[in-house]
Formats: sequence, structure tokens, C-alpha cells
Amino acid sequence: VNLPPAKVGKAASEDEKREFMSIFPDLVRDLTEIGSETDVPEAQKWYSKVLQYNAVGGKMNRGLAVGLSFKLLAPPEMVTRENMEKAHILGWCIEMLQSFFLVADDIMDGSEMRRGKAAWHCKDSLGLSAFNDAILLEAGVYKLLQKHFQSSPYYVDLLELFHEMTMKTALGQALDLLSCPPGQRPILSKFTMQHYNAIVKYKTAYYSFYLPVALSMYMAGIRNTDNVRVAGITDRELHRQARTILVEMGQFFQVQDDYLDCFGDPSITGKVGTDIAEGKCTWLSVVALQRASANQRAIMEEHYGRSEPDSVEIIKALYRELGLPATYRAYEDSTSSMIRIHIQQISRGLNHNVFFKFLDKIHKRSS
Amino acid sequence: VNLPPAKVGKAASEDEKREFMSIFPDLVRDLTEIGSETDVPEAQKWYSKVLQYNAVGGKMNRGLAVGLSFKLLAPPEMVTRENMEKAHILGWCIEMLQSFFLVADDIMDGSEMRRGKAAWHCKDSLGLSAFNDAILLEAGVYKLLQKHFQSSPYYVDLLELFHEMTMKTALGQALDLLSCPPGQRPILSKFTMQHYNAIVKYKTAYYSFYLPVALSMYMAGIRNTDNVRVAGITDRELHRQARTILVEMGQFFQVQDDYLDCFGDPSITGKVGTDIAEGKCTWLSVVALQRASANQRAIMEEHYGRSEPDSVEIIKALYRELGLPATYRAYEDSTSSMIRIHIQQISRGLNHNVFFKFLDKIHKRSS
Ligand SMILES: [Mg+2]
Ligand SMILES: [Mg+2]
Ligand SMILES: [Mg+2]
Ligand SMILES: [Mg+2]
Ligand SMILES: [Mg+2]
Ligand SMILES: [Mg+2]
Repeated sequence: VNLPPAKVGKAASEDEKREFMSIFPDLVRDLTEIGSETDVPEAQKWYSKVLQYNAVGGKMNRGLAVGLSFKLLAPPEMVTRENMEKAHILGWCIEMLQSFFLVADDIMDGSEMRRGKAAWHCKDSLGLSAFNDAILLEAGVYKLLQKHFQSSPYYVDLLELFHEMTMKTALGQALDLLSCPPGQRPILSKFTMQHYNAIVKYKTAYYSFYLPVALSMYMAGIRNTDNVRVAGITDRELHRQARTILVEMGQFFQVQDDYLDCFGDPSITGKVGTDIAEGKCTWLSVVALQRASANQRAIMEEHYGRSEPDSVEIIKALYRELGLPATYRAYEDSTSSMIRIHIQQISRGLNHNVFFKFLDKIHKRSS
Repeated sequence: VNLPPAKVGKAASEDEKREFMSIFPDLVRDLTEIGSETDVPEAQKWYSKVLQYNAVGGKMNRGLAVGLSFKLLAPPEMVTRENMEKAHILGWCIEMLQSFFLVADDIMDGSEMRRGKAAWHCKDSLGLSAFNDAILLEAGVYKLLQKHFQSSPYYVDLLELFHEMTMKTALGQALDLLSCPPGQRPILSKFTMQHYNAIVKYKTAYYSFYLPVALSMYMAGIRNTDNVRVAGITDRELHRQARTILVEMGQFFQVQDDYLDCFGDPSITGKVGTDIAEGKCTWLSVVALQRASANQRAIMEEHYGRSEPDSVEIIKALYRELGLPATYRAYEDSTSSMIRIHIQQISRGLNHNVFFKFLDKIHKRSS
């Protein structure tokens, strides 16, 4: 197979980021100063705070990805200033959906930090009322879609896609919570590769990888219909192909995320890992349990999911003893090659560079 | 003004309730055995539990109201078995939306009981993970709408209405939380009648009163359009009129709810009030603060929002001393008359009996 060379560099330029960021204040205004809720200014003021604190501040990869893939997928004459702004609005909808999940997840996990600052529920002793703010972040997605896309032919596709991604993410979170219940010891008997893959696919891969590309496909006129586009392939089939490959990439991405959480360099990743202390169902813990002897399993049972530094070190030592760093490197290389081959097999009608661009962003990453 | 006589009796017959209940198992199946999430059976099994425990079991007034008002609003030839089933499905969507809010609210308020049994987050030490189950309940609304209404001409109206109601309810909850923050003392300086009215309108009235009627209006062909229906009145204007009157009724209903929480007979209401102990911003507390002397205000500051039985009794005695039961009776009579007059003023094109039926259900209720 003839594999294209990996491209180097960031997926989004600084200019693109600036453009993306620059529309955020307008969206906050759409959400808090316009429409039928202007008779509750106190609530709107609060909502504005919630948006400013929570929707901004990540790497914004998901949000930026909509515009990036739209540029590659749409015919050049469609890539106008106006359409790029629309793509960015959809990008912000993903960022808001994600902030909804993260605010809620941090409460459930008892996480105190997010993106280098206090998690929202830990700020000003907000506590459990942060849940309602998560709900407001989600509700904002649909208010933005209504304002900016109500007259688009693909408006219903957008609504249904966000609904479906929300359902899938919540089902993934439910699976995660079943094996790692808040305030309890992790249930290692549930830590199988099948369970792990299902969590990752549902909780992360759909909304992080498929969602941005699917949104750009809708904008580019590739709808969820039986319209035949190229060589007998329908638009619906193109979505199915994109979904399959992007979910695969999302799973690859999460395995890396898990690896870096434990073995990454905090000066590069920008964060100190907490997966072991929190008892998360990770790729490392699942592979470790697959390989563990009875004694090693007992170590996992005793120390996994404890925040004491000694316990965390014992688990890391066990991971090394089980050869997980080498296994990971082999996994990374073979998965990356496999995904490249799968991209080649996607039918024409979808620019393969979209997928290669995503993959290049992930492969051999260290942060 | 010539007021129609109040009708006696329950709004929904036992037959109607049985019919309504009978479709629930099919909806659970739609949500957990069908569609694109069948590859995560463990999550689906969990979701089924969440639905069974939380979506069923209330008085189901909101859910039943869709079918009841559809019967009154639609031309007789539209009231078919099939359409009644559709109305009931929309009713279940309201019940699910409500269960989403209630599961989340009980976590935030630390409430341990709901509908005579353990609140979901208190069951089997589920704790904070119950919040994700709330999200699943909400997501189910859109999956049901997609399955059963995707090809209806009013599908987008339904989606937008549920989105708007969700936003409004969450904004109302935000207002409530601002004056009554979880784990803190209530902020009595914020307990004004304006603040109270805004909370009630947003947090309760829209989704409990306007939503069921608006859904039945969509089904009956009264859409959010400028289509002129009767005597120059557009469909959009009919929605506006229904909204105004139903929000008014919702506020009336909540004042009663607050009164019954404190002065109702538990053997009739079926529950022991907790508003004083929880420090809720209620009609009683707001009127009390309006009338309180400096000393009486100090009593409120000291004892309101404390769960000790002595504190609760001191507040109840203060309410009596301030003459609140008599004030409430006067409020009830004058508000009921005013709403009757407002109903008369609604343009023809909307059967007034829908609104009288709602009002009769509320007026002089003791549970
Ligand atoms: Mg977390
Ligand atoms: Mg989590
Ligand atoms: Mg991680
Ligand atoms: Mg409550
Ligand atoms: Mg509450
Ligand atoms: Mg009450």
C-alpha cells in the first residue's frame, strides 16, 4: 500500500484560532441578550459567566476541526467568509456540548482542576448547583443552532446529530460509571477490553471525532440521504464510512491519552495524570489485568484507584514490569498503519486528506 | 362577566390513565432495544432501569394533559386512536423531561425522597452518578420524537419547543439556586415578589402548563406560523395567547403548591412539606418578608432554611401571626376570577374549555 507522508505541524493555524475565538463574544450575546428570555436579566448574567468560564479555554481541537474539515470537503466556491463563520459557530456548539459533559463529569469524578484552573463546581463553593449550569451549556447549543441555522436545509440533520451524539456520550459515561462508581472502589472484574472499547467509542470518539466532520459534511451538502453522489455511493454511505474511520481514530486517540496520563512528560502534556488515583478504566489497566498473575492482580485490587502517591507508584511499577510501554509502542504503530489503510479504502467523494490530517495530528503525539 | 360553572371531577378518567400507562413499555423498548445503540447492551439495560424508576410514578398530570387538550382542540375527525397514541407519546416526553429535572433537582437540593420512595441518587448509593442518568432521561425525549414524529410536518416545532422549555426551566432553576444555594443559608435579601414570580414562571409554569397545550396545538395543526386562522388572528398569536394564560395559571398553581406545602393536610396532599426546612423561595416566605417588622425579619433570618422541627414551627407560627392563611384565600379567589376573565378574552379559534378545565383542576384544590 502506498501511504502518504505524515504532515507535520499543527492542524489549525494561529490565524484560524484567532478567527474562531473572535466570534465567541457574539455567541455569548446571542445566548444572553437576545430572544425570549430577556425578562430574567439576573439569570442571563449568570449564564454569561457560566459560558465565559467553561466554554473557552481548552485546546479547542474539536471546535476548530469543523472549519478545517469543511475547507477540505466543500467545493472551493463554498468556502466563503460567511460559511467559514457558520462552520465556526458549529465548532462552538461542539465546545459547548463538551463543556456540558466536562462540568458534569468533574462533579461526578470529584475532580478539582480543569484546564489549569479550578473546576467550575469548586469555584466560589458553587458545588452541586454547577449541574444546572451544565444543563444551561447544553441548552445553549440548540439556541445557537436555531438562531444561525433555522433556515438551512440541513437544520434538522444538525439537531438530530447533536441529539444522537449526546445520547451516545451519556451512554458511554453510564458504562464508565458502572465500572467506576463515584465514591466507591473501581470494579476491576468489569475492566475488559470489550468494556473499555465500548466506553471510549461512546463517551469520547463519537462527539470528538465523528461530530466535527459530520457537521462539515452537512454544510458541504453531504446529507443523511440516499442521494447518490459518486460511483453508486450514497451520501448516507459516505457518512457511515466517515463515522467508522473517525470512531476508530477516536479510540486510538483515547489509548494514547491513557498512555500519556501515566507515562507522558507533564512538562509537555501540561498536566499531571490522575487516572490511576481515580481508578479509571483505561487501556493500561485493562491490558495489565489481561496479563496479570494472581499476585499482580491482587496488587491491582489493593492499590488501583487510591490517591496515595505510594499506591500510584506501585501501579506504575507494575505497568512497567508487565512491559506496557513497549506494548503501547507496538499498538501505536500497528494501529496507525491500519487506520492509514482504512482511510485509503474510503470511497472517493470524501477527500482523504481530512482523515489523514486528523491522524497526523494524533500519531506520535506527546501532548 | 358571565363565568361558566366550575366542572367537578378529575381531569383524566381512569381509562385515559390506563391507556396512557399502557404505551410506556413500548417506549422503553424504543429507547433501549432499537436504533444505533444496540452494541452497548449493558448501558441499555441500565437505561431501562433508569426509565422504569424515574419516568413513571407521579400523578402524570402533565403527560395526560396533552391528550386531554388535543381532544378539545382538534377537529373531531382528527381525534383518532392513532393520534391519541401520538398525543400520549408527547405526554411521555414531558414526563421524561420532568424526570430529568427532578432527578437533578433532588441531587442539588439533597432531597432523599421523591414520589413516596427513595430519590434516585439515594437508591443503592448511586450518588452523583445519578446526574448522568438525568442526562439520559433528557436524551430519550429526542430519540422518541425522532422515531415517532420525524415525518410529521410539525417535527421541527416539537424539537424547538422542547429545547426552549428546557432552556427556560434551567434558567428558572438558576434563579432559584442564586437565592437558595445548595449547602448554604438562603439569601433572604433576594426573596422579592419579582424574583419569586420569575423563578416560578421559568422553572415550573412553562413546561408544566404551556408545554402540554402547545404540543397538542401543534398536533391539531396550529403551528408557529403567520397562517391566519380566524378573524385575522394568526396561529402564532394563538400560541402567544395560550402561553400567556397558561403561564399565569402555572404561577397560580405554584402559589397553591407553596401554601399546601406548609398548611396542607398531609393525609390529603400525601406529603409532608419541606420548603421551610430547605429554605425555598416560596410565596409564603416572600409575603412574610414583605410584611415583617425588623424583629420578625430577624426571626426569618435565624430560623428559615433550618431543618430542626423547632425552627420550622417558629416560622409557621410567624406565618400565622402575619395572617398569611387569610391573605392566601383572598389571593386564591381574586386570581381565579382574574384568570377566568382572561380566558374569556382569548380569541375564538382556541376552545376555551381547555383552559377552564385546567383552571378547574387547580382551583380550591387541597392536594
Ligand atoms: Mg473525569
Ligand atoms: Mg468521569
Ligand atoms: Mg485522560
Ligand atoms: Mg427540590
Ligand atoms: Mg431545587
Ligand atoms: Mg412544592
